[in-house]
Amino acid sequence: MSTQEYAVLGTRPVRHDGADKVTGRAIYGADIHLAGLLQGAILRSPHAHARIVRIDTRRAEALPGVKAVVTAADLAVSQDRIVDLGEGDTPLSYLRGNVLASGKVLYKGHAVAAVAAASLHVAEEAASLIDVEYEPLPCVLTTLDAMREDAPILHDGLRTTEFGEKTGRVSNVAEHFRHELGDVSAGFAEADVVVEHEFRTATVHQGYIEPHTATVLWNNDGRILVWCSTQGAFVVRDVTACILDVPVSRVKVTPLEIGGGFGGKIPVYLEPVAALLSKKSGRPVKITMTRRDVFEGTGPTPGSVIRVKMGARKDGRIVAAQAWMAYEAGAYPGAMVGPGAMCVFAAYDIANVVVDGFDVVVNKPSTAAYRAPGATNAAFATESVVDELAEKLGLDPLEFRLKNAAREGTRRADGPKYPRIGCVEVIEAMKNHPHYSAPLEGPNRGRGVAIGFWFNAGLPSSCTLSVNADGSVNLVEGSTDIGGTRTSVAMQAAEVLGIGAEDVRPEVADTDSVGFTAVTGGSRVTFATGWAAYEAAQDVVRQMKERAAKLWETDAASVTLDHGVFRSGDRSMTFRDLAARLGETGGPVTGRGAVNPRSAGGSFSGCIADVQVDPETGKVDVLRFTAVQDAGKAIHPAYVEGQMQGGSAQGIGWALNEEYHMSPDGAMQNASLLDYRMPTALDLPMIDTVIVEVPNPIHPFGVRGVGEANIVPPPATLANAIYHATGVRLRSLPMNPPAVAEAIWSKEG
Amino acid sequence: MSTQEYAVLGTRPVRHDGADKVTGRAIYGADIHLAGLLQGAILRSPHAHARIVRIDTRRAEALPGVKAVVTAADLAVSQDRIVDLGEGDTPLSYLRGNVLASGKVLYKGHAVAAVAAASLHVAEEAASLIDVEYEPLPCVLTTLDAMREDAPILHDGLRTTEFGEKTGRVSNVAEHFRHELGDVSAGFAEADVVVEHEFRTATVHQGYIEPHTATVLWNNDGRILVWCSTQGAFVVRDVTACILDVPVSRVKVTPLEIGGGFGGKIPVYLEPVAALLSKKSGRPVKITMTRRDVFEGTGPTPGSVIRVKMGARKDGRIVAAQAWMAYEAGAYPGAMVGPGAMCVFAAYDIANVVVDGFDVVVNKPSTAAYRAPGATNAAFATESVVDELAEKLGLDPLEFRLKNAAREGTRRADGPKYPRIGCVEVIEAMKNHPHYSAPLEGPNRGRGVAIGFWFNAGLPSSCTLSVNADGSVNLVEGSTDIGGTRTSVAMQAAEVLGIGAEDVRPEVADTDSVGFTAVTGGSRVTFATGWAAYEAAQDVVRQMKERAAKLWETDAASVTLDHGVFRSGDRSMTFRDLAARLGETGGPVTGRGAVNPRSAGGSFSGCIADVQVDPETGKVDVLRFTAVQDAGKAIHPAYVEGQMQGGSAQGIGWALNEEYHMSPDGAMQNASLLDYRMPTALDLPMIDTVIVEVPNPIHPFGVRGVGEANIVPPPATLANAIYHATGVRLRSLPMNPPAVAEAIWSKEG
Repeated sequence: MSTQEYAVLGTRPVRHDGADKVTGRAIYGADIHLAGLLQGAILRSPHAHARIVRIDTRRAEALPGVKAVVTAADLAVSQDRIVDLGEGDTPLSYLRGNVLASGKVLYKGHAVAAVAAASLHVAEEAASLIDVEYEPLPCVLTTLDAMREDAPILHDGLRTTEFGEKTGRVSNVAEHFRHELGDVSAGFAEADVVVEHEFRTATVHQGYIEPHTATVLWNNDGRILVWCSTQGAFVVRDVTACILDVPVSRVKVTPLEIGGGFGGKIPVYLEPVAALLSKKSGRPVKITMTRRDVFEGTGPTPGSVIRVKMGARKDGRIVAAQAWMAYEAGAYPGAMVGPGAMCVFAAYDIANVVVDGFDVVVNKPSTAAYRAPGATNAAFATESVVDELAEKLGLDPLEFRLKNAAREGTRRADGPKYPRIGCVEVIEAMKNHPHYSAPLEGPNRGRGVAIGFWFNAGLPSSCTLSVNADGSVNLVEGSTDIGGTRTSVAMQAAEVLGIGAEDVRPEVADTDSVGFTAVTGGSRVTFATGWAAYEAAQDVVRQMKERAAKLWETDAASVTLDHGVFRSGDRSMTFRDLAARLGETGGPVTGRGAVNPRSAGGSFSGCIADVQVDPETGKVDVLRFTAVQDAGKAIHPAYVEGQMQGGSAQGIGWALNEEYHMSPDGAMQNASLLDYRMPTALDLPMIDTVIVEVPNPIHPFGVRGVGEANIVPPPATLANAIYHATGVRLRSLPMNPPAVAEAIWSKEG
Repeated sequence: MSTQEYAVLGTRPVRHDGADKVTGRAIYGADIHLAGLLQGAILRSPHAHARIVRIDTRRAEALPGVKAVVTAADLAVSQDRIVDLGEGDTPLSYLRGNVLASGKVLYKGHAVAAVAAASLHVAEEAASLIDVEYEPLPCVLTTLDAMREDAPILHDGLRTTEFGEKTGRVSNVAEHFRHELGDVSAGFAEADVVVEHEFRTATVHQGYIEPHTATVLWNNDGRILVWCSTQGAFVVRDVTACILDVPVSRVKVTPLEIGGGFGGKIPVYLEPVAALLSKKSGRPVKITMTRRDVFEGTGPTPGSVIRVKMGARKDGRIVAAQAWMAYEAGAYPGAMVGPGAMCVFAAYDIANVVVDGFDVVVNKPSTAAYRAPGATNAAFATESVVDELAEKLGLDPLEFRLKNAAREGTRRADGPKYPRIGCVEVIEAMKNHPHYSAPLEGPNRGRGVAIGFWFNAGLPSSCTLSVNADGSVNLVEGSTDIGGTRTSVAMQAAEVLGIGAEDVRPEVADTDSVGFTAVTGGSRVTFATGWAAYEAAQDVVRQMKERAAKLWETDAASVTLDHGVFRSGDRSMTFRDLAARLGETGGPVTGRGAVNPRSAGGSFSGCIADVQVDPETGKVDVLRFTAVQDAGKAIHPAYVEGQMQGGSAQGIGWALNEEYHMSPDGAMQNASLLDYRMPTALDLPMIDTVIVEVPNPIHPFGVRGVGEANIVPPPATLANAIYHATGVRLRSLPMNPPAVAEAIWSKEG
């Protein structure tokens, strides 16, 4: 729907890092090898909740080959303070506690101590020789259990924050907040139909293929050099510096290629531990997680309990909505219920809204972001209720959504008023898609729809560009590339300069070699780092115009650049030709750009799914799946489609199969990729995609982030489809065969 | 003599790369290891001059473990053209021919073919299995032999350039040029004393400790990735691209730490060969030279024959000077006689001058730069003649030099007129030094003085700076650091920003990650890259003032920065405090700077040496040595002194011992560091240093390059000292024991 014509944007060039990725040459964190490298192993808690009475490392230290053993006692004493790791404020004591447990262990898998040795086998053997005396405590594993008055308390010092104020009450509820808009009682009084239900979602993991790994050298000059797999090199730098109590410039982080993250590679786990081991041993130390470590020791996304009540008039207008949302924080207060509460009714224009959010600590790993964190849980509830409302009103589910869709000027209950957004356009694209009107015949088949929203993040990004004599340009950025962003960022510079995407060579730099750049997350890289590249390119153009003016002995203000050709009067010169003449006109040209957008302009998405349910086994087959998303301007449509397909696949896995199976004493029972059932290509249909382009008014090219909104609708879409196939509404994730079969049986009595 | 007060410049902070250098952690070229790495070996010519009749690589290719064999035939056919590798124009065919011989071999050690194999032993074995049929040709090893009418011709197509015009004459004289000023005949007619002699200098090597090494991956996407030891990553990029006939942006060069270069690590030898082997094998290939390869296969600095005639009036004024200078080019036309001719009389204000320069190819390795290339040879001649003139006129040698010293406004015979220079100040500092007036008693002892000049280079440099939240700054530069320039460049940024040298963290980047930056050579890094850092820092200051203005709601023009404190009216904020608030004022700040100075403002130096000569053996002991040099502003005095001491040590070695011992058929007889006699610490006295500071008017901080002028006077200084000790004037280098003894004996009859 963009009307502006671009030369580069919207095309599908080969990605710059493609050759290295497909030939196996790309260097990942575990590929790093330094002279004298030691291997690290972490001792993890066998208890979900226990007091640490005593740690005796003497037997480990005595084992031949062991070079260092560390515990929380090796962290320099420093005052607790609040730090922002790019995903919200966190007390230093929580960051530190999650890296090396101090006083108590709060989940099975919690890191307690670490060893560095000449070989991994020796390190693991030594870790097993560390004697830890625990005093086991009762554990709580669900939000509802943790919220009971008599629940075991995880943090003795955690006083509940209520409506922004710290209370005197010690509980497992870290925070209770409320968003309000209008008068929700009056709204419900006006409603002709009200639907209310409770929904539950399981704890799920991002399931990235590459486990966490970090190699650290605490150098003799006090500098701490880190090589790791992360979504944000500057996050690792800042958090590691914070935990170790050194200035940020003492830490240099070199991000390697990353084998998936989806939000789970934002938190810092290994780097400070490897740093302490390196400081103690005087040698570089590498720690690499096993898959079990990843499941048990890193942040999944929260399980949740959500109660949604919505009321509508007969004319199809939603007049009131209320949500009660309790999200697992995991072992330390988390941030996922916040975005969940922002998104729960974000797709709709509703006058009267109340949302109550509860952030609840439980004895599971501290939760982390996972693609639109919190929003998928929320949409599962809202979109199920919306579907039921539409049915009760006898309205087409998309017509009903269209009638109530958020649009420019709609105010969300958490405050912001929308600028130009694409919610209506997404729903219309769903309505107009052949999938929606295609016949769906046969028994046990049903079609479902749902929509979703993610607000996306702004945050700082930096970029520099250097012009080569052959007319190509080198681009340096600080954003680790997970989804093809080297190319989507480079394309934006190319568009400004009027050269080809392949003429811009992007490089992801270490933290010493580029300006501050926030995390690769929040769907922000193509949006914000692309914008920084746009600014850097504008800086190049300004200087190149001066050079042309110098050659032509004219005023720079008279020089224009159009599709790679500089012009003044009847003189003209291509970008390439001028690039070859920089030496004679003053020297090399480098451009710099930096941005810090405070908002990003959200993205809406929608899905249509056809399922077939086996009434005997409860197995759900996805027959057809269509994903629609507003990309703003789609810079590289193939990568937008890839994000939509990836988010859909993950949403389908979350909907149908994935969950942490926990024993009553807090042990994960399925901590392997064999038992933690993620969908494979065989489990999925081809995922059809429709890119909607409603330009983002705050971005120079209209870009919106596209990495996340696509995971929001799938669980609700499938729940609605299962209902239309079976007449049964499932309100708990995952909707795996036993759950579906049981629901069908209990309906049938 | 600088009057301006600086906070950082002129101090002696610890170098940023110090810890890595002293602990052995610094990564050099040979430390690079890539997955699947092959080792390369080069087959070198056993003949100094021969036609290559046939190369049969079949036996080598058949050896198990061999992955690729290449010869010049593997280079893509492309038209010959002139390329500038940062040290003057060179035809592509010469660059290519020196990398892999085509048609003929021109020196013993000339690369003929190369092999890549799974191990170095297999590669070397395979190289020995390459059957090359040679037709040996007579060789020429000296300029005078090569200039004979009947000399064997190295290049059938080499037509002599005479006074800038290509002639029809095919000879070994690549070029004959002339610089003229005034009327030299009239000048000599005016002279009361004329001295004329012929001088010879031997071929000498730079003697860097680290041999050349290159690792190259010709990637599947056509990009050529290079890791190597070089003085100029962009030179390697551009020359390699040129030889391989690909655009420069196809090549990425990562420069590692460098174990010395002194000019000898500017040319490209291994990179294109390793690239061809990698292309053919599909694997990364590393080639590392042996010491023999370094001596026989890389560029030494030219041996030369120089005739100098100078005339002076009784009043001590030099009125005419004439030089005839024939420099070995080695196997391919070289550039060293050019700078030699620029420098030969550059320290003096002489009205009538003629300089004839001859660039002569001989059957030795193609020559390379070596610290003030060409100038040391020239000063040996000039300063010996000047010393003799002073004696004949009964004048103190420094008084005589002072009377004739070049100063602001003096025009050199090659054209330029001096801006503010420090020649007079250097001579005065020598005169005033206690060494010059100290008694020198005892037999066979003598004191000598000499002065020298090097013009230094400008050329492009780029730099970017990024501000960290802790008030420190990251600096990215393209200049490989040989002599502590990370620190001397960082200090200039620190001075502008008003922060400490340790608060600027310098990083030498690869060619994809920083703007074009010319070679580390010509004493240009502290001068030009420092200037680029100054400009980048000014760009940071401009932006930081805008941020302060935003916070203070005032106009950026009202904000000042003084010693790290921003002020406007009565408000103030430190650089560090403002750095912490960039996020809230618009995002990260990155500054960029690029310069391309066309000239650099030369540096003058002078030496005073006391020697004792053993009349029986001819052995010369240097008893005391004082080096004086104009640094402009000495940024980091310890590194200026280090350069002066290093240049002095190399000049002493060149004067007394170093030379290529060649057999009549062109084989170097002393191609090892045991036989090629460089001075050790035991051979040298403490070298005292005096830094003179006459600010360079074209540099913002008055910096002059200091890496080279210091090697220029030592040989002449020692020749003059030997004369004053023995009464014998040596006019041939090296002045080793046999030469000195023979001179003494022949004087004594």
